[in-house]
Amino acid sequence: MRNILIIGAGRSATNLIQYLLDRAESEDLFLTIGDLDPTSAQNLLQGHSRGKAVHLDIFQADQRREQIGKSDLVISMLPARFHMEAAKDCLELGKHMVTASYVSPEMKALDEEAKEKGLIFMNEVGLDPGIDHMSAMQVIDRIRNNGGKMLLFESFTGGLIAPESDDNLWSYKFTWNPRNVVLAGQGGAAEFIQEGTYKYIPYHRLFRRTEFLNIEGHGTFEAYANRNSLKYREIYGLQDILTLYRGTIRRVGFSKAWNMFVQLGMTDDSYSIPHSENLSYRDFVNLFLPYSPTDSVELKLRHNLKIDQDDLMWGKLIELDLFNSEKRIGIPNATPAQGLQKILMDKWTLDADDKDMIVMYHKFGYELNGERKQIDSNMVLIGKDQTYTAMAKTVGLPVAIAALLILNGKVLTHGVQIPITQDVYEPVLRELAQHGITFHENFVPYLGYNPNNTEG
Amino acid sequence: MRNILIIGAGRSATNLIQYLLDRAESEDLFLTIGDLDPTSAQNLLQGHSRGKAVHLDIFQADQRREQIGKSDLVISMLPARFHMEAAKDCLELGKHMVTASYVSPEMKALDEEAKEKGLIFMNEVGLDPGIDHMSAMQVIDRIRNNGGKMLLFESFTGGLIAPESDDNLWSYKFTWNPRNVVLAGQGGAAEFIQEGTYKYIPYHRLFRRTEFLNIEGHGTFEAYANRNSLKYREIYGLQDILTLYRGTIRRVGFSKAWNMFVQLGMTDDSYSIPHSENLSYRDFVNLFLPYSPTDSVELKLRHNLKIDQDDLMWGKLIELDLFNSEKRIGIPNATPAQGLQKILMDKWTLDADDKDMIVMYHKFGYELNGERKQIDSNMVLIGKDQTYTAMAKTVGLPVAIAALLILNGKVLTHGVQIPITQDVYEPVLRELAQHGITFHENFVPYLGYNPNNTEG
Repeated sequence: MRNILIIGAGRSATNLIQYLLDRAESEDLFLTIGDLDPTSAQNLLQGHSRGKAVHLDIFQADQRREQIGKSDLVISMLPARFHMEAAKDCLELGKHMVTASYVSPEMKALDEEAKEKGLIFMNEVGLDPGIDHMSAMQVIDRIRNNGGKMLLFESFTGGLIAPESDDNLWSYKFTWNPRNVVLAGQGGAAEFIQEGTYKYIPYHRLFRRTEFLNIEGHGTFEAYANRNSLKYREIYGLQDILTLYRGTIRRVGFSKAWNMFVQLGMTDDSYSIPHSENLSYRDFVNLFLPYSPTDSVELKLRHNLKIDQDDLMWGKLIELDLFNSEKRIGIPNATPAQGLQKILMDKWTLDADDKDMIVMYHKFGYELNGERKQIDSNMVLIGKDQTYTAMAKTVGLPVAIAALLILNGKVLTHGVQIPITQDVYEPVLRELAQHGITFHENFVPYLGYNPNNTEG
Repeated sequence: MRNILIIGAGRSATNLIQYLLDRAESEDLFLTIGDLDPTSAQNLLQGHSRGKAVHLDIFQADQRREQIGKSDLVISMLPARFHMEAAKDCLELGKHMVTASYVSPEMKALDEEAKEKGLIFMNEVGLDPGIDHMSAMQVIDRIRNNGGKMLLFESFTGGLIAPESDDNLWSYKFTWNPRNVVLAGQGGAAEFIQEGTYKYIPYHRLFRRTEFLNIEGHGTFEAYANRNSLKYREIYGLQDILTLYRGTIRRVGFSKAWNMFVQLGMTDDSYSIPHSENLSYRDFVNLFLPYSPTDSVELKLRHNLKIDQDDLMWGKLIELDLFNSEKRIGIPNATPAQGLQKILMDKWTLDADDKDMIVMYHKFGYELNGERKQIDSNMVLIGKDQTYTAMAKTVGLPVAIAALLILNGKVLTHGVQIPITQDVYEPVLRELAQHGITFHENFVPYLGYNPNNTEG
């Protein structure tokens, strides 16, 4: 029997656990799910004889090492900053490890020793990072193997609300960590490269430089730039590529409206507001507007952001009840971002029967036999319910599949790695397709840019 | 003979040294000026028998302690981060100290021990901080002593170009550290209070929320908010004040034009641009604009910032030669801010006969006997030449005067302090007035705001 230890039974672990339980007999697996609160894990196990839930505090070395010691492979679904506790034990105790998180410098530092011990530490094997790597590398490798030369790679992902649950003017609800949504794009300029020219977008302009994406049967989306696209040159072996751009997908109109909050300074997380708990939503908004003895908060905001009387954006603010003078922020010493999140959560929290949707879109521009070509590839997945969400499925399934591949000796490289080699991405993508996570490819005219133009 | 050690003979030390030399005989002083390069100090001493220049490296403990040991009082005119080396020695060797810099937490930590040893560590006794403290506290104390209650305090300072040297469209040249000008306002939202309401301005809006200031005989100026006005509540004992706002003065139109650079992201100092040394000014600007195969950099910038054909701001960009395709940035791995500084220094560097100008403006709103009143107070000073600048005079003279006051036993409080007590500000301001640094007070209608309005 192969023992898998899953640390962290949060929202992203549902499909992961289901997948492995479904194969527990045929693959001879036993699942131990360790969590601070084992009751939710207990529920997910549904009394399966090949699984048990245990209390596990990642910072209790004895508990942790005992459970890791009994396992053959450890899956950490904790927030990324907690992986290292388990990773060091895995290295010492000789266990494989899988995470859906970005490889941290600390994780990377374990590479050599992991290789020496014949261990596989597979990271970035969720959705984004994860399915984006695998689906992109599959096409990039195919283009190159056919003799093509990559010219352009653009890649976009978004966690959205399903159309059937889309009942607000923003076409958005929090299907994942709200805080990350409020802080998205902060911390530095977005850096990318277009036709060989470096391009930089400061945070306060990020939501005004969007790109449209059409997906047949799903309508039009928009995308704003992620912070650092440039690192993918090295990761994907695209050192000489002319255009490299990664972004985040939203429904059309979201970014322009979100920009209102950015402009006002409401997404700032760097300072605290005194007495914020007693501020009404209206008071909160007023913090970011000039003083006036006569003008209303509404007029000041309209004037400040130059919002016309008949602008649709106004309705989006009204829908959020932004000018309510009764509702309170209720959080002491809140940062602007925390105050805004509170206001948004009133309206953007999922209803019990809401479903989420994952959208991924790649563009591959290349030259083959002197001709410029382009492949656009997209994946759209709608969640089943609020337990088995599209997010949990797209994060959890590749983690589970990768774990099984490792246990079955199908991953050929040892050490700290991400799923960009064929031995990994081919079987994972094949298996994902059987679960409805499929990419649709379209051959389109090369839509790139004009590399002959000297200005760029 | 009383020995004064002046560490750092930079641009701000000229008037300081002159003032002390002029009083060397009458006050029985001897000046030792320590600098990494003693030649400029030598020039400033002009062969005076009561002064000498010595080589001094602040990080060479032996040199430093030898010179400090021989002195009665140490003036550090080095950048603020270097003061602590000397301050610790002063404490140990029992010497007074004077600086024109903000009290750092490390400096503050020396307070108790300095008090125990009867030492005076006077800081923030230059222009801003310095003359602003003293001129403000003089009026605030007067208002209070008369039974008035402070309602409003606004304070503005600017280092500008004198009208006779103002020959560019920005009405601005670098009269001080250019880097600080490019980075001004960064690092967090500007925080202040108006009519009892907290107000926050994010950096990317800072230069669009300016206030006009008129000074008779000098025309109209504008001011943008400094980052943290709120700390002055405690420093000046204005805990209950309704309005507290500090800002930086520019000539009208500067801020709106500077905002173009802020919006483009050109003032960002947080990342480096690859191959920046080879970029033309035009290439540099293009980094911050969307790619286009057809449109010129000029058109893209106009469109991006919505600059009309006949907007005066356009001329300001042309004057800077921003679209030149021959001139190179010339700095490897430059941040945007460094690139922008390079471009600006071509045009904003002082000519040999240019003069600078210091402008300070305070507003004091108060209630006395049930009536609301306001005093506006301003100081304008034009420099003599590029050695004896208005900046050097307004920074150096109060330092020198404070040093003499300390040596003559006129400063009553021991410990780490700033010049906000009457025993310090009265004699310093009186002496400054004799050197042409005078404040003009105007009694104006209470211009404050309307505290009866609930929205604010």
